[in-house]
Amino acid sequence: MAVNLPLPDPATLKPVAGLRVGVAEAGIRKANRRDLTLFELAPGSRVAGVFTLNRFCAAPVQVCKAHLASRGGAQIRALVINTGIANAGTGESGLQAARATCEAVAGLMGVPPQAVLPFSTGVIMESLPVDRLVAGLPRCQTALAADNWFAAAQGIMTTDTQPKAASRQIELGGRLVTVTGISKGAGMIKPNMATMLGFVATDATIAQAALEQLVREVADGSFNCVTVDGDTSTNDSFILIATGAAGTPEIADFASGDGARLKAAISEVAVQLAQAIVRDGEGATKFLAIQVEGGADRDECKAVGYAIAHSPLVKTAFFASDPNLGRILAAIGNSGVVGLDVGKVRLWLDDVLVACEGGRNPAYQEEDGARVMAQAEITIRVDLARGVAAATTWTCDFSYDYVKINADYRS
Amino acid sequence: MAVNLPLPDPATLKPVAGLRVGVAEAGIRKANRRDLTLFELAPGSRVAGVFTLNRFCAAPVQVCKAHLASRGGAQIRALVINTGIANAGTGESGLQAARATCEAVAGLMGVPPQAVLPFSTGVIMESLPVDRLVAGLPRCQTALAADNWFAAAQGIMTTDTQPKAASRQIELGGRLVTVTGISKGAGMIKPNMATMLGFVATDATIAQAALEQLVREVADGSFNCVTVDGDTSTNDSFILIATGAAGTPEIADFASGDGARLKAAISEVAVQLAQAIVRDGEGATKFLAIQVEGGADRDECKAVGYAIAHSPLVKTAFFASDPNLGRILAAIGNSGVVGLDVGKVRLWLDDVLVACEGGRNPAYQEEDGARVMAQAEITIRVDLARGVAAATTWTCDFSYDYVKINADYRS
Repeated sequence: MAVNLPLPDPATLKPVAGLRVGVAEAGIRKANRRDLTLFELAPGSRVAGVFTLNRFCAAPVQVCKAHLASRGGAQIRALVINTGIANAGTGESGLQAARATCEAVAGLMGVPPQAVLPFSTGVIMESLPVDRLVAGLPRCQTALAADNWFAAAQGIMTTDTQPKAASRQIELGGRLVTVTGISKGAGMIKPNMATMLGFVATDATIAQAALEQLVREVADGSFNCVTVDGDTSTNDSFILIATGAAGTPEIADFASGDGARLKAAISEVAVQLAQAIVRDGEGATKFLAIQVEGGADRDECKAVGYAIAHSPLVKTAFFASDPNLGRILAAIGNSGVVGLDVGKVRLWLDDVLVACEGGRNPAYQEEDGARVMAQAEITIRVDLARGVAAATTWTCDFSYDYVKINADYRS
Repeated sequence: MAVNLPLPDPATLKPVAGLRVGVAEAGIRKANRRDLTLFELAPGSRVAGVFTLNRFCAAPVQVCKAHLASRGGAQIRALVINTGIANAGTGESGLQAARATCEAVAGLMGVPPQAVLPFSTGVIMESLPVDRLVAGLPRCQTALAADNWFAAAQGIMTTDTQPKAASRQIELGGRLVTVTGISKGAGMIKPNMATMLGFVATDATIAQAALEQLVREVADGSFNCVTVDGDTSTNDSFILIATGAAGTPEIADFASGDGARLKAAISEVAVQLAQAIVRDGEGATKFLAIQVEGGADRDECKAVGYAIAHSPLVKTAFFASDPNLGRILAAIGNSGVVGLDVGKVRLWLDDVLVACEGGRNPAYQEEDGARVMAQAEITIRVDLARGVAAATTWTCDFSYDYVKINADYRS
């Protein structure tokens, strides 16, 4: 069902020097699925992350934050990711389970527990089976390989219908630098700092403080622009890793030159991974880009974008390819923008001006709307005519299969 | 599909002295359906209303507000309601159509156009066929009768599967006083001041200023507590009429005595009508009452209630009768309540304590959750443990039929 989302070609996913990945079946929640993934980072690697703002922040997210705070991002040596159980809404015993996971990885790899970052995704408010997870770790370790990104993209899937991975290579100072990443997520997707799970690594060398700034900027332009159903997850995490193994000069500024080119490559990978989550959104049949411009500030453009993207009425109309576009006007009017002059708002579907001057564009023909609605990819453009701010939101439509997937999940 | 919503018995819908209703087929959008309703109010009637806060406020709502402002609520003599076309997102020509409708009613009934309040519900951003509407008005006038409330409840339906009407009678000062009302709405329901359309009338005598206060208080405890899909409509209107024809003493205070009893009767009718909208929510198979208590203020209790009620993941889990209750914790954590201590939050399904101390209640058994989830009516209770404020939200689940209804609507 995914919208224009080709399966990644494993051959195009370039290894990142200084990083190896191993995947195994640990039977966390169901048997016979790859549900445990281990990242091994070479000494000298630097890590930065952004995490969910959901108050019911999952235990592994709390442990990630604590380990990054206590050790700093330059001392992290391993990431461990399980699917099946989110280890969220699990109280004190959930924290113990996340810490026990880190201790087991640390014992295997000969590093301190604080050098391990744990991640979980799956059902909320159920206990993580630490014994099965720990039993699976040696198989992950045995499988560690540099060219294992495709398997890792498979290993972190839950309701995803296909793995999500992307890679870019650029030359920095005469050396080849690689950026490769994976993401997962299809439901409970409205990232607020980051998405369900996203990991992007490069073998370039980036200063720690600059990496921490970069991860926020990249997340704001990629994962923080997508929504499937408006439900911010308890486990959202986006991690950026710079191993430094390519031996390029340290970058501390992304404003121009090599820094700007590296930032562009990392952003391209992140945008591709973020859009992949929407293209594979639960039940998605259409990919919608909502461009809101002419706002007084970015926040109100985001508010209008989310009001449209979260309206079940708008989403079902796109599923039906029915240009029932008054629903978009209602969503704009419902976005909470104070003092919005609806007489000045303009609405386009791709190049078709649908509404202006408080109502339907007199020149609008329903067949023009119907032509655009029939496409698999559609741009909804809104001009608020109040200023110069803009924001883009990517989302998908709302189909029978969304209900089916979420009524069946867990079963 | 409606949940525990018996068809109103026309015999129980008591006429309100001083008010007659007529319904006709006008072919507004489709042939052979009752789509035009006329209320005739005796001289001396008083009217007050609350209307949508959607910025794309429909033309008839704008005209209602203007007529109430220019004439005052004590000079209104007729209400006219069409279905099929919402006359919203229609700009200046929509305003002209709403005014032309009032002029036609005024001409028939021998009253000024400003004494007429117009209401529309249906598809947004399409033009109201004023000629067909006006042609149907004489048939409405011919049909005017005091015992026509059931027909009126049918006449204002759109995607509703059944008419919604309620009636109460009480004695005030030795005289029988009647309160009767109707409502409509099944989708695009998250009233903000009022619901899609609600009309409640009494033949008691109420001071105009008191009536205007009363309509807000009643709306806040009834229509403003329901949501189906979180989409605030462009046409929400809730109108309270006091004809005074029962000849009871004028009431200006609802704090005690006859005033308190009358307010209780009006509130009961309004709550029944508001809940009927949720029971008949598009595709609804379950009626959910979300009681949030222990809040620092009512606003944060409402925010938590709406976060739960609008989560597609929570709503599909209830459709599936699957106690996947971590989704409720995620919604609470996602409600934007600043400084919420999730370690203190408690969550019940009816009498079953599901979560406490940041996670699953150790004594919780999944079969207890499953037993409650199998019911058609379920109370979700949340204690935020921050204060003494509380708020209730009524909503329904999210099923295949919601998608079907909204993917097919218009066609």
